Amino acid sequence: MDTSRLLTLLEEHAATGKYLSGEELSKLLKISRTAVWKQINKLREEGYEFDAVSRRGYRLLHAPDLMTAERLERYLQTKLYGRKLQLLSVTSSTQIVARELAEEGEPEGTLVFAEQQTVGRGRQGRSWHSPAGKGIWMSLLLRPELPLRSAPQLTLMTAVAVCQAIRKVTGVEAGIKWPNDLLAGGKKICGILLESAGEDTRMKYCIAGIGIDVNLEQEDLPEHLQSVATSLKLAAGQTQDRAELAAEVLLRMEQLMELYQAEGFQPIRLLWEDMSVTLGRGVSVAGHKGMNTGIAVALDDSGGLVILDESGALATIFSGELELD
Amino acid sequence: MDTSRLLTLLEEHAATGKYLSGEELSKLLKISRTAVWKQINKLREEGYEFDAVSRRGYRLLHAPDLMTAERLERYLQTKLYGRKLQLLSVTSSTQIVARELAEEGEPEGTLVFAEQQTVGRGRQGRSWHSPAGKGIWMSLLLRPELPLRSAPQLTLMTAVAVCQAIRKVTGVEAGIKWPNDLLAGGKKICGILLESAGEDTRMKYCIAGIGIDVNLEQEDLPEHLQSVATSLKLAAGQTQDRAELAAEVLLRMEQLMELYQAEGFQPIRLLWEDMSVTLGRGVSVAGHKGMNTGIAVALDDSGGLVILDESGALATIFSGELELD
Repeated sequence: MDTSRLLTLLEEHAATGKYLSGEELSKLLKISRTAVWKQINKLREEGYEFDAVSRRGYRLLHAPDLMTAERLERYLQTKLYGRKLQLLSVTSSTQIVARELAEEGEPEGTLVFAEQQTVGRGRQGRSWHSPAGKGIWMSLLLRPELPLRSAPQLTLMTAVAVCQAIRKVTGVEAGIKWPNDLLAGGKKICGILLESAGEDTRMKYCIAGIGIDVNLEQEDLPEHLQSVATSLKLAAGQTQDRAELAAEVLLRMEQLMELYQAEGFQPIRLLWEDMSVTLGRGVSVAGHKGMNTGIAVALDDSGGLVILDESGALATIFSGELELD
Repeated sequence: MDTSRLLTLLEEHAATGKYLSGEELSKLLKISRTAVWKQINKLREEGYEFDAVSRRGYRLLHAPDLMTAERLERYLQTKLYGRKLQLLSVTSSTQIVARELAEEGEPEGTLVFAEQQTVGRGRQGRSWHSPAGKGIWMSLLLRPELPLRSAPQLTLMTAVAVCQAIRKVTGVEAGIKWPNDLLAGGKKICGILLESAGEDTRMKYCIAGIGIDVNLEQEDLPEHLQSVATSLKLAAGQTQDRAELAAEVLLRMEQLMELYQAEGFQPIRLLWEDMSVTLGRGVSVAGHKGMNTGIAVALDDSGGLVILDESGALATIFSGELELD
């Protein structure tokens, strides 16, 4: 039973406070009144709440933050990204599932989305806390015709896409901490992990792993993260729609990938710099060759962070853990 | 039963034409004469042939081209590379096995060697013909602390290592065709496929896949390859010892990796240029953006091939299929 057209009508009218009667819905959707009633019931089972008033009809009161293929598709404006979808209630890690799909030959834009991850992974082998139904835990398979050396730039591109989507859908003024963490009010709301597979100089595929803390409450965060992490709900003061946000991330990813392939890294770099909360700040980066401390002054052409130290020397850092002073 | 010490003695004496009696062997190895006799028998079963003369003893006439862990170890001079070994009689592809081992956390230097591959893979999804017992079909797991952008340079480093090893062990004057094919007399004798796995800017691991046509006869090559491929046996006029050659490849790989990590790409580039059969030649490279034709003039810092075209313009090519004019 496809309830998406009914839901769209109810959502449109809910915004104006108007009711829609069973008869109006029946005419607009060109289905019987019994079919309307059945669809309303199905939506109720999914957690939608309606105000049903005799002779006036139905008004949508509350849409659950449900992540269904139908709801994602309703918001999806992409050509390719997210059109092929695996929606999992629980999985070990969406990165692992996506890599298996990549090896099996699944196409560019294939999306793996999990309600919950049991061993969600972050950068450098760290774990990523991914409680059920509270976040966007997803992995997007990319197969661009690019050299392998583009991979670090795609990491930064992904951070830009997610930051744009969060700002647009939730209004939260997210910023990017180099290379690809997103912060709100100085606390982490999103982690990005880009895993790539190369063959000689060629990129075979890469998988953009995106973890966004959407509707986590304070108590959903493990104690050791409470001072450093937050969620969009906590930052914005209200529940956010994961399907709408995920669809917006996918749209931005697709648009930025087209831009990158047409124009190269330069426009992505400008967007990144514009959203950065790192440039102009004092930073310390611990790499395996020791500590670099100074002012972050620029992003270089290949995505490295250029740091100006006390002695006036410039160093470019390509990986490591960054602390904002 | 470890026959390696006995074999070493017999091999040393075979070179001078001397015989070793059962009594001498028993004393030298500090084992009983019965034990000597058992070991000789075991070696015969493995395909070794001896001249056994009453009162004089044994002389090694012929060592089979056997690839056993013992024989590889006897030649191995590395600290790490090849010390952890999976020797398979038949497998789909050593790359696939090595990747599984990498994901399971096996250490740097782990080697997968197959007598035969059923779906051996070459670059760009092509198949690689790998008949039983005739070649070196192996994959070496590398976990260097390097940025992902080093991967193309490791491809070139591998070509240098294999080329050095072939020249030393077989005397065949192999040369490198950009980026990483090895030729002898203009025909291909070795293919290299470097697959890498990255996480953001960091290299998680890479797998150097090396396929060397060692002892293939003309009839072992499929018809469509006979004009473009050959083997070391055909080029050198005699059977080559795969264990010795594989051990030499591993040693060169380990030495060059140390050099690369200490000094960067520059010394590797010089070695590559010295062994190149591409530089100074007219070449055509078909990439996905079209055809580049001109004279190959240099290798650039990141491993790209610099081509000078008729109009005097320089272009740097990072991937594609190269034809020598």
